[in-house]
Amino acid sequence: MIIIGERINGMFKDIGEALRNKDPKPIQEWAVKQEEGGSHYLDVNSGPAVPNDERPEAYEWMVKVIQEVSDLPICLDSTNYDAIEAGLKLLKRPGMINSCPAERDKIERVFPMAVKYNAALIGLTMDNKGIPKDAENRIVFAMELVAAADEFGLPFDELYIDPLILPCNVAQDHAPEVLESIRMVKTLANPAPKTVLGLSNVSQKAPDRGLINRTYLAMAMAVGLDAAIMDANDDELVDVAATCEILLNNSIYADSYLKVFRQR
Amino acid sequence: MIIIGERINGMFKDIGEALRNKDPKPIQEWAVKQEEGGSHYLDVNSGPAVPNDERPEAYEWMVKVIQEVSDLPICLDSTNYDAIEAGLKLLKRPGMINSCPAERDKIERVFPMAVKYNAALIGLTMDNKGIPKDAENRIVFAMELVAAADEFGLPFDELYIDPLILPCNVAQDHAPEVLESIRMVKTLANPAPKTVLGLSNVSQKAPDRGLINRTYLAMAMAVGLDAAIMDANDDELVDVAATCEILLNNSIYADSYLKVFRQR
Repeated sequence: MIIIGERINGMFKDIGEALRNKDPKPIQEWAVKQEEGGSHYLDVNSGPAVPNDERPEAYEWMVKVIQEVSDLPICLDSTNYDAIEAGLKLLKRPGMINSCPAERDKIERVFPMAVKYNAALIGLTMDNKGIPKDAENRIVFAMELVAAADEFGLPFDELYIDPLILPCNVAQDHAPEVLESIRMVKTLANPAPKTVLGLSNVSQKAPDRGLINRTYLAMAMAVGLDAAIMDANDDELVDVAATCEILLNNSIYADSYLKVFRQR
Repeated sequence: MIIIGERINGMFKDIGEALRNKDPKPIQEWAVKQEEGGSHYLDVNSGPAVPNDERPEAYEWMVKVIQEVSDLPICLDSTNYDAIEAGLKLLKRPGMINSCPAERDKIERVFPMAVKYNAALIGLTMDNKGIPKDAENRIVFAMELVAAADEFGLPFDELYIDPLILPCNVAQDHAPEVLESIRMVKTLANPAPKTVLGLSNVSQKAPDRGLINRTYLAMAMAVGLDAAIMDANDDELVDVAATCEILLNNSIYADSYLKVFRQR
């Protein structure tokens, strides 16, 4: 299970302020804290805290300050592909691009960039008309993204398909379709594409968010989830990821397996 | 999700003593307490607390005292089929038989009994040589049990296939095979057979049993688990069952869904 820490995101107040004030401290603190929690990647997203035309510079700065304190690979998260490319140029180790929908103009911009910079790529099962409800139509988009990987030379297992989970309190019928999508994606190519979720989305505005996140993570891992953008400092959530790895026989059981998982 | 409360079992000290002293109180208290926790069935197992030849009488007594305090259906759990039949004769509402392995002599004894008393039946994916490790061989046994249901006239959806989870600290490689077995069982007949696990077994002698039980329950429900013999008074575990029902879109989301689940 690949944990992509979600916390360096301008939507959070402290990160938004850090971006506006060019104050590296909160960003660096969250980089270290998420690494300690069990992150394998750090998602980095300016959000609306930075005007669009200033984002390339902001992503350069974020990459620079994060790499001063952490050796974790970085997942560059933006709809501004110039910002992503600005960040990619400075990465000390192969990163990840978050994300590309199944739209031809974006595919032509993003897939070659992933190959050029040796980055993994998150592909979204949606186009400019939105997110389909059922698994079958999500898989149509996943197939377009797999075909694009083949066309542009991105190894299939460097493509992370995100079937886009929505909040269960407003789009409950999506939740089982996303599970089925994860299962189906794993059959689309050899080697199989990877799968990823923006996990916290499933519990937006629900009263017990932790319970819903933990439960859906276990359910999704049971059907083949490889990675999640999630709260790497939610200890109970990371415990569930570690326990799933044991129960999927991916990690060898030891009584101390929770500790071992975090020491990887 | 059908919760079968595990607690009325002679392996627990208080129930063992109650059986030896013919004291109905602990048995009746656990019947009520498990119903309040969220049980839909009460598993009833004398365990070794009662000598084999006295079990028919003991099961009659247990059924009688439980039905004085609870309207829940009873799951009669024994390898002594005369004890099970003695209990079945007294049931006020259709019960469940736990269990029958894929062995011809036992199939011929148990399946007709299930049909005669209108009881559901738990079939085990094992024979007298033991439990196979991989899903494919578990499914061979499941197919024998489905064929027996057809032969003796037990509706397929009254057959609960138990693929037999073993403790993950000693037989870790079984855990993903059991998940795959659950998924495959659901494809064996129309209507699909149901699936059940003796959940607590997965965490035997592990340090954090609750975490392992909760996580495996969510994983198993994601691939089609219909029922579990489990601790109905582990609130966190019942919360996970309720949350899975929401995330599988089997129950309608409300902010109070945890409470609603227990009020069914």
